[in-house]
Amino acid sequence: MEESTEGRGISRRCLLGAAGGAGAAGMAAGGLAGAAGRGWAGDDVPPLAAVGGTSVPFHGRHQVGITTPPQAYGHLVAFDLRPGAGRAAAAGLMRRWSAAAEAMTAGRPPAGDDQIALDAGPSSLTVTFGFGRSFFAKTDLGDRMPAALVPMPPFPGDALDHFRSGGDLWIQIGADDPLVAVHATRILHKAASGTAAMRWQMNGFNRARGATDRPRTVRNLMGQLDGTNNPHPFAPGFDAEIFAADTTGPHAWMNGGSYAVVRRIRMLLDTWEKLPVDRQEQVIGRRKDTGAPLSGGTETTPVNLAAVRPDGALAIPGDAHIRVAAPASNGGATLLRRGFSYYDGPRPDGAPDAGLLFIAWQADPTTGFIQVQRKLAGADGLTRFLRHESSAIFAVPGGAASGSYVGQALLES
Amino acid sequence: MEESTEGRGISRRCLLGAAGGAGAAGMAAGGLAGAAGRGWAGDDVPPLAAVGGTSVPFHGRHQVGITTPPQAYGHLVAFDLRPGAGRAAAAGLMRRWSAAAEAMTAGRPPAGDDQIALDAGPSSLTVTFGFGRSFFAKTDLGDRMPAALVPMPPFPGDALDHFRSGGDLWIQIGADDPLVAVHATRILHKAASGTAAMRWQMNGFNRARGATDRPRTVRNLMGQLDGTNNPHPFAPGFDAEIFAADTTGPHAWMNGGSYAVVRRIRMLLDTWEKLPVDRQEQVIGRRKDTGAPLSGGTETTPVNLAAVRPDGALAIPGDAHIRVAAPASNGGATLLRRGFSYYDGPRPDGAPDAGLLFIAWQADPTTGFIQVQRKLAGADGLTRFLRHESSAIFAVPGGAASGSYVGQALLES
Repeated sequence: MEESTEGRGISRRCLLGAAGGAGAAGMAAGGLAGAAGRGWAGDDVPPLAAVGGTSVPFHGRHQVGITTPPQAYGHLVAFDLRPGAGRAAAAGLMRRWSAAAEAMTAGRPPAGDDQIALDAGPSSLTVTFGFGRSFFAKTDLGDRMPAALVPMPPFPGDALDHFRSGGDLWIQIGADDPLVAVHATRILHKAASGTAAMRWQMNGFNRARGATDRPRTVRNLMGQLDGTNNPHPFAPGFDAEIFAADTTGPHAWMNGGSYAVVRRIRMLLDTWEKLPVDRQEQVIGRRKDTGAPLSGGTETTPVNLAAVRPDGALAIPGDAHIRVAAPASNGGATLLRRGFSYYDGPRPDGAPDAGLLFIAWQADPTTGFIQVQRKLAGADGLTRFLRHESSAIFAVPGGAASGSYVGQALLES
Repeated sequence: MEESTEGRGISRRCLLGAAGGAGAAGMAAGGLAGAAGRGWAGDDVPPLAAVGGTSVPFHGRHQVGITTPPQAYGHLVAFDLRPGAGRAAAAGLMRRWSAAAEAMTAGRPPAGDDQIALDAGPSSLTVTFGFGRSFFAKTDLGDRMPAALVPMPPFPGDALDHFRSGGDLWIQIGADDPLVAVHATRILHKAASGTAAMRWQMNGFNRARGATDRPRTVRNLMGQLDGTNNPHPFAPGFDAEIFAADTTGPHAWMNGGSYAVVRRIRMLLDTWEKLPVDRQEQVIGRRKDTGAPLSGGTETTPVNLAAVRPDGALAIPGDAHIRVAAPASNGGATLLRRGFSYYDGPRPDGAPDAGLLFIAWQADPTTGFIQVQRKLAGADGLTRFLRHESSAIFAVPGGAASGSYVGQALLES
């Protein structure tokens, strides 16, 4: 695929491969009878196969996993370079990682395969690599660090765990099959051996393929449709808002790249769920069931922040999340949210350790996430139901062309 | 559905509901173009819907989640009764839990719903309840505890974490959609409030629906097909081996029930993956790619333990896992394994905290899991790549008839 055809995002990159095409023919039969056939050897009922057969090509102007539709399962992993591992070691690592990612996203076994995902199709696997601020000093590339990769400022209410924040290197792994996602994580972890140690791993999820009867925005663990107002990859201005502007000179390696802000945001579900639904809806500014803004219409109706109710009150309260987070309230700041929920079990106090692995993509974090979060931390009624427990920011280079690896323009020039 | 038609297991219980039937009609179109439509509001491409539309009826002679095909996503949770909560409180809890499980498995919102799963179909959700030995003393039902619910003996090599072992009450939750599984776990946790506190939670997974192009035994994180030799629910003798024999008298509440042994078995993947594949195959006794026994044939070919190679050596080595675990090596002991893999991130030493949430079902744990594990712990070549890190055993009563709740025959008579 030519790079020049790939810049617009999802529809040209998410293609059914050959396996999926063959599988689709058997889907009607598999759907009606498939449940009985799984897992017991000797049954002979063809299952759905389009989930496994969907592949997202690794090479392109942008890395995958940004405009790619959110997959059902995700792993976020950060690594730190081992002492003594500098630029050459990092280059070797990125070369190994890219080769493994390219193979696995195409459904081929990577070098040193453990065969965990042997029978599965690529299942929409994407692998996305980023560099943290600490990466540049350790690789003697401080002068190549882009100005947009700012340190994350503290925000009111932050309760950050240092050991689950930051990292020299970051990988976002997503797939519609959990074994495919775990396989990629394991292979990339092994490929780092000797060069980088895993700093943290977070596991998350979204809706499984085929769980709903029509495309819907996914719900978060507060029960709200989350992502309704995300910018659409086909919308005018999307590329300028989400992808770094092309430059020449020392930061040209970021052409086609983006910046990811990663926050583990725990939801105080015990508190949240004590609110009646109509109060929850006022905190968000949308109906919980349909996602329609309280100013009326359906989920996709534009929000009318000026609408008033018959009693004269604002239809969308002054501290409603969608009012405070709206681009119009933030000098037009736009970011693309593409996260995963997490649900890790009970905390020592009995409350669920659950919430959102929040990932925001933008061309410039200062005018993106940081500007929005400064506003939210002071004025958003939702804030009191959330705890930001980890934070990281990564420069995510453009995609690799065939034959090259992610970050090569930084590490070899 | 009449109880009398349900005893044979999976094929009559896993039916597409109305939502699934409607969804199936749109699957071919959804499969071919659906990937581009997910997650971005405004796209209008119908997705697969058979995954969400599949339902497993809650009521029946047996509880669901035993012969039900393994789902993609699972939670195992244990609870302890709070001080002062006795038989009446436990009865109230089982009534609330059963009502919530019945609603959610049918795709209806439970009481006090948080709407996390609002748009999803039931997605093959099953909820299975069990009682630990400690439950009976706390509810003054010691004389009703069946003899089969023995304390788990220690095994060589056990490295058990007390805090993730045992429990008064146990719930196994499985679904093909992660939000549906989390929703059920959250709802059941809330329904326990005031009566029981969560003791531990473990999250696991299997293959997603539709990730492979034909039905296959799922792979575990060692890359092996795992479960090939499981007894088939339609096989002669299955019910007698897996389900408790019907009795009258104080233990009749277990009629239609089974016993679950739950072990969190960590895999020493760093060690395992250093073995060449042919050595791994000798440890297991099967080919890694196809699952065929080393005595020849395909995955489903019966194992020939007597087969010898041209050089005179046993085709399946003396310490191969499938030899030592074979029913013929264990006085005919048969159990049904139905587990989930887990992959929780790096341990402090850098190794992956990953392995199998092993669940064995049998009519009698003494002649089932305990007999097999005694043999394995001494002779199985696989043992040195495994660490058993938690252990629990539960009496899982028969299923509830419509209008009653799981455990009612124990708690109200």
